This record gives sequence, structure tokens and C-alpha cells, in this order.
Amino acid sequence: MPSHDQSPLAQFTERLRDEPERATVTFRSSTTLGPGYRCEAEFRKHSVVVDEPPSIGGTNEGPNPIELYLGSMATCQAIAYRIWAEYLDIAMEAVEVDIEGDIDLSALFGISERARPGYAAIRLDVRFSGPDTAERYDELARAVEQACPLLDSARQPVDVSLTARVAD
Amino acid sequence: MPSHDQSPLAQFTERLRDEPERATVTFRSSTTLGPGYRCEAEFRKHSVVVDEPPSIGGTNEGPNPIELYLGSMATCQAIAYRIWAEYLDIAMEAVEVDIEGDIDLSALFGISERARPGYAAIRLDVRFSGPDTAERYDELARAVEQACPLLDSARQPVDVSLTARVAD
Repeated sequence: MPSHDQSPLAQFTERLRDEPERATVTFRSSTTLGPGYRCEAEFRKHSVVVDEPPSIGGTNEGPNPIELYLGSMATCQAIAYRIWAEYLDIAMEAVEVDIEGDIDLSALFGISERARPGYAAIRLDVRFSGPDTAERYDELARAVEQACPLLDSARQPVDVSLTARVAD
Repeated sequence: MPSHDQSPLAQFTERLRDEPERATVTFRSSTTLGPGYRCEAEFRKHSVVVDEPPSIGGTNEGPNPIELYLGSMATCQAIAYRIWAEYLDIAMEAVEVDIEGDIDLSALFGISERARPGYAAIRLDVRFSGPDTAERYDELARAVEQACPLLDSARQPVDVSLTARVAD
């Protein structure tokens, strides 16, 4: 039974323990292309503009999709630090995440199939601060590495099914 | 030698053919956590707000990271359709992409390790329209499936290295 003295996260987690089937969820997004390369990705009431730079004819009104993927992973790490610092009762004052990824765009731009179309390597660099011991922060970092959804979604293959059709 | 009659994409692609080493690039993003769960993901001059819903104590000012990942993949598909329609000289009037992904959040919220932390399955549904033949649109869809960077980044494992440390 959640107590009103508990944080929203503690109450949410206790509800999930009581009804673990609620932990399995489906997220959704939709997008429409254009004009040009510009897209708006829609998520519930939120919208994010994605675009390409002028070098290929875009209007550069937002990050490109390949960059946005890195941003999703970096923010997932940062938020997982917030969640797990509370679970482990570790004081955490700041979290900064830098991410970079190497990709060979030969396949996307049709110049060769010398490399896979996707990311070859990604490097995440997380820096945090707080007054706890180094051992406790190691414990936190290990917990986040085990729990982060998008780190796992990159490191292990995801089953993606695709239907493409001419609209009626 | 790019001609000024060519589109920006055609000129860009011709430059890559001349200097294929320029196709290997590194993208970057940075983020700072807080207050609360709110993050701003930074990409060159662009910034995207990412947040969590009030159910866990967030302020719901943007999509969550797990949703944003879906948006990156959907927009990558849409933009790859634009690129490849030009390469294959196929008329394409509209592209809409719906994406959904199933995930078990038990690991993220520490209630069990019954499932991987990341996406179990993702479904992409692409609808497009235009006056060309069904055979030509099949050709386009197959080309995009082979070329899309983020579809490949999900289907095949990506090498992600991680450093986490207390800031100086």
C-alpha cells in the first residue's frame, strides 16, 4: 500500500510490485514527412522537429534522426541515474552525459555496401557528482548499466518488423 | 564534378563518390540531468526536451527517452524514403510512419530481472502514396529497408562502450 510520505517514484514502484503485469507497456510515435526532409515526430501531446542539413537539401530545423538516436540513449542513461540513486539511497548532485557514435553513411547514400548502414560504435561518457563514497558510485553505475533500456536496445538485437505499402 | 543543375542531394552524393572516406562520420550529443528527470539533449545548435510523466515524479515537458528512440527510427525511415525516391527516380507524394514498441520495464524499475531492459519488439508501419507502379514502390521499400541506419542499428547489435565516473 503506497504511503503518502513516499516519493512518486517509490509509490509507482510499489504499485508495479503489486501488479507486475503493468510493467509491460507499448510506446508509440507517428511522423509525417515533409516538406522536404523535415519531419515532426509526435509522442502523446509532444512533438519534436527532425530535419537534415542544407548539404543534402534540408532546412536544418532540428537534429537529424541519427543524432536524435544518440540523444535518446544519453537521456535514458541520465534518467536511469536519477531513478537508481533513489533506489540505492545514494546522493547525486549532477549528471552530465556526452555521447558520440561512428557511422559509415555509404549504404544510406548508395555509394557502396562496404559497411553496415547503422552505427559501428558508440561511446557514452557519464560524469556525476555528489558526497557519497567511490564504492557507492560504482554500485550506482553498475546498476544503471544493467537497467538502462536504450543501452540494452543497442547492445542486443531488437526484433523490428516492417510493413510498407501504398496508402489506399 | 557536381553540376549546378543537380539537386543538393545529387551533388552531395557525387562528392561522396569522389571522396568515399568522407562517408565515415561521428555524430555527437550532450545532456545534463535536471531539475528532476527533465533533460535537454543538445545537438549542434538544436535542443530537445526529454522528461518523464508525473506518475514517477516528472514534469512531462517532453517525450521520455524510450519514446524518443521510436521517433528517431520513424523519422529515419521517412527521410530514407525521400532520399531513395530521388535515387530511384520514383514519384513519392506523401510518407507517414507509425511505430510502436513493446518493452518490459521490470528491470528499469528494479522489480525483477524477468526480461531484458530494452525493447522486446518494434513494429514499423510505413504508408506512402504516389502515381508510380506497385513494382516500383516495392523496389523503393526494399532499398530503404537495406539502407536505413537506425533500422540496422536496432536489428544488429551495436558496440557501445561506457565510462562513468565522479566528476573532478
